[in-house]
Amino acid sequence: MMSEALREELTAIVGTSSSTFSPHHNVDDLHDESLHVRHVEPFAVLRPTSTDQVADIVRAAARDGVPITARGSGTGLSGGATPAPGGIVVSFELMNQVVRLDTNDHVIVVQPGLTLRELNEYLKPTGLRYPVYPGELSGSIGGNVNTNAGGMRAVRHGVTRQHVLGLELVLADGTILRTGGPVVKSSSGYDLTQLVIGSEGTLALVTEVTLKLSPALEHSATVLVPFDTLDAITRVVPSVIASGLQPSMLEYLDVRTMSAVTAAASLELGVSAAVAASAAAYLIVVLETRTSEQLDGDIVDLGTLLDDAEALEVYVLPEHAAHRLIEARERMFWVTKEAGANEIVDIVVPRSTVPAFLDEVARVAKRHQASIAGCGHVGDGNVHLSVFLADDEDRERLTRELFVFGLGLGGQISGEHGIGLDKRDHYVALTDPSLLDLQRRVKIAFDPEGLLNPHRLSDASLLTR
Amino acid sequence: MMSEALREELTAIVGTSSSTFSPHHNVDDLHDESLHVRHVEPFAVLRPTSTDQVADIVRAAARDGVPITARGSGTGLSGGATPAPGGIVVSFELMNQVVRLDTNDHVIVVQPGLTLRELNEYLKPTGLRYPVYPGELSGSIGGNVNTNAGGMRAVRHGVTRQHVLGLELVLADGTILRTGGPVVKSSSGYDLTQLVIGSEGTLALVTEVTLKLSPALEHSATVLVPFDTLDAITRVVPSVIASGLQPSMLEYLDVRTMSAVTAAASLELGVSAAVAASAAAYLIVVLETRTSEQLDGDIVDLGTLLDDAEALEVYVLPEHAAHRLIEARERMFWVTKEAGANEIVDIVVPRSTVPAFLDEVARVAKRHQASIAGCGHVGDGNVHLSVFLADDEDRERLTRELFVFGLGLGGQISGEHGIGLDKRDHYVALTDPSLLDLQRRVKIAFDPEGLLNPHRLSDASLLTR
Repeated sequence: MMSEALREELTAIVGTSSSTFSPHHNVDDLHDESLHVRHVEPFAVLRPTSTDQVADIVRAAARDGVPITARGSGTGLSGGATPAPGGIVVSFELMNQVVRLDTNDHVIVVQPGLTLRELNEYLKPTGLRYPVYPGELSGSIGGNVNTNAGGMRAVRHGVTRQHVLGLELVLADGTILRTGGPVVKSSSGYDLTQLVIGSEGTLALVTEVTLKLSPALEHSATVLVPFDTLDAITRVVPSVIASGLQPSMLEYLDVRTMSAVTAAASLELGVSAAVAASAAAYLIVVLETRTSEQLDGDIVDLGTLLDDAEALEVYVLPEHAAHRLIEARERMFWVTKEAGANEIVDIVVPRSTVPAFLDEVARVAKRHQASIAGCGHVGDGNVHLSVFLADDEDRERLTRELFVFGLGLGGQISGEHGIGLDKRDHYVALTDPSLLDLQRRVKIAFDPEGLLNPHRLSDASLLTR
Repeated sequence: MMSEALREELTAIVGTSSSTFSPHHNVDDLHDESLHVRHVEPFAVLRPTSTDQVADIVRAAARDGVPITARGSGTGLSGGATPAPGGIVVSFELMNQVVRLDTNDHVIVVQPGLTLRELNEYLKPTGLRYPVYPGELSGSIGGNVNTNAGGMRAVRHGVTRQHVLGLELVLADGTILRTGGPVVKSSSGYDLTQLVIGSEGTLALVTEVTLKLSPALEHSATVLVPFDTLDAITRVVPSVIASGLQPSMLEYLDVRTMSAVTAAASLELGVSAAVAASAAAYLIVVLETRTSEQLDGDIVDLGTLLDDAEALEVYVLPEHAAHRLIEARERMFWVTKEAGANEIVDIVVPRSTVPAFLDEVARVAKRHQASIAGCGHVGDGNVHLSVFLADDEDRERLTRELFVFGLGLGGQISGEHGIGLDKRDHYVALTDPSLLDLQRRVKIAFDPEGLLNPHRLSDASLLTR
């Protein structure tokens, strides 16, 4: 039981209108978009408006030993923002301002609650962009930092990690500090910016983010390429990468996923009936260039390469259709959820091993009598699988088998969604105990009392096996 | 005094021919290329040939409390590889093999003693390259990882940090573990790979490195552009970046540095006498493209942009001259050293603040009656200054003033050389004590006894001020 005194103290910090206390929470604040529903009742949900307020909250919580979970906009898929029972949720919803834009340095400083959509809108008139594109534009920058979000443009532009130059942090004892800064390179001490990125709220609260921007490229083409086997599609990917064409997206969708997302969006892409009937999977390639001449040349060279790889057809989509296809692809998660998927797997494997991995997926699905649809950032070896198998234990076994196989190929459990609560048991079971132990020591260096987003990643309490 | 027993044990691990003991060392093993000569006598210099030998050495050293300094090829510029007195130097000279190349995944796994030159030679027939180009090709990959080496191509391709996918480490207690792997993205636990990069041998010994490769770009042009003021050159840089031309090098040399490097290389670049007489500084822009058509278009667009910025002339260099100019620029450090420079400053500031920073450099030089020549990776805001001022105390004051000014602009003390022993006192004095303290806790998480490369970075013993 939390004290009335703490409640009053927290209310005084953020104000009555920016706080709720158990049992009067808005249920939307208590979960992310993980498919695994958890009923958790935190003590408080707080919406600070400044770094000082965050520090005050943390100091009060630390004094009373109350756990803290940071929350962006709740679009995570792994239960990373699921509150701790009886804990404090620090929601960054109201810390959503642009602090500073420097168009000469291509640097923007933002608060963590700013969404990708807000950032994109803000940058539109500047000719600059933040190229990371995890699809869900209502996601917050703070959430992106904490999961090291990736998305469709990572194949060319990299993931969040490659675009964060500095952070302002509130540590577990309330200390405010800055790491990095508005420079694109540094060899001046441990790179704690990089360490905090992807740490899922377990090391510090992120209260400000310095991002690197890029000049927007003006010319683009979206190419849709059906193949008659999944194998053919995954085999052509390394040659597209090797070509030096630098596609900014290189996605695959199996025919089931493609049908689902196009149907959900009522999208007609002009694929002939004969081609559609033969297609087993689709490749989407987006090219972006500085000049229209370069784009024309790149399209020709890409076409030659795809013809050689026995594509059924190569469609260069009209701009409007291209836009709608990418939008529909973005909605894949929602379509999958609507269809009743029980699990999303977000594994990453070496690019060239995707064919072997997907063969194994088919075998595992058959063995468990499960249905598995797939798509993914195939240029990065990052495969998203929607698993339809209701029985929890059987599904956990299936998932474990996929992870074991993927790790055996040199892969990692999560390419971009994070471990959260959903993949935690798999992660702890499948990771070298020495590596977990080292991570636990790092966690303790930042958060000796284990107050920040407990039971995630290498949390000390998980290491008693 | 080290024991005879330890000496025998270490000899048994690596063999007689791969070990020297005090006072019988080869003096070349006892320093890097720092301008500050230090006479340090370690107990042992050892050349292991395997990770297991490294782990055995570390276990023996840990048991006896003997400090360990990792050594690549000794090309560092900051005293990062200076041994600890009475300690053990682990030289990775003999661990210089390519472990595995995967041309489909564009991944290579190498031992840390492999030099950049050896790596480049190995990759030549593959059409792939490791794009990081710190200039000194005799530098080792392990050294590059530990300093987060940058160099001339960072403006397009990023620094070492952006190309290391995974590491094999020997921890301070002899534990061997792997971080990351042959995948280009991951959100699966703390990114300890990134934490170790740039940690100057203070967290772990790096025994294997997994690197990301890129397709080599076939067409390139090197453009030499004299300007009549230094200001004009630093002001044109943001517009080159904003153009989207993505130069793979964007360097400046002041006229003094240019004269020195071209004279040292007996290099004739065809700059007319009239232009040479008016030039205050030179910009070098290297463009690299996939096709010759794109290169031609890019050269025209770059030329227009430079003309608008009042370049004195725009020279597209013949291939041979271009190659020799870049080679001469690489040799800048040696020319500077030969000329008797007393200090190399490697500061990084936000790109747009380079003009203000260089104005301050001129003022500071005048105030201290010092001579300062400069060049640098101006596209990254990374300025290399050669300071000629013999008096140690006065020079330290001058350097401190430059760092204070640069940090005030949002910069960092080292862009790519690292802190080492040379910049340590400045670093500790000018860094937020809370940030140093957090780094110290991270250091303790990895190396509780402080055996790995002591007195570097946030070493606990430095934090008693």
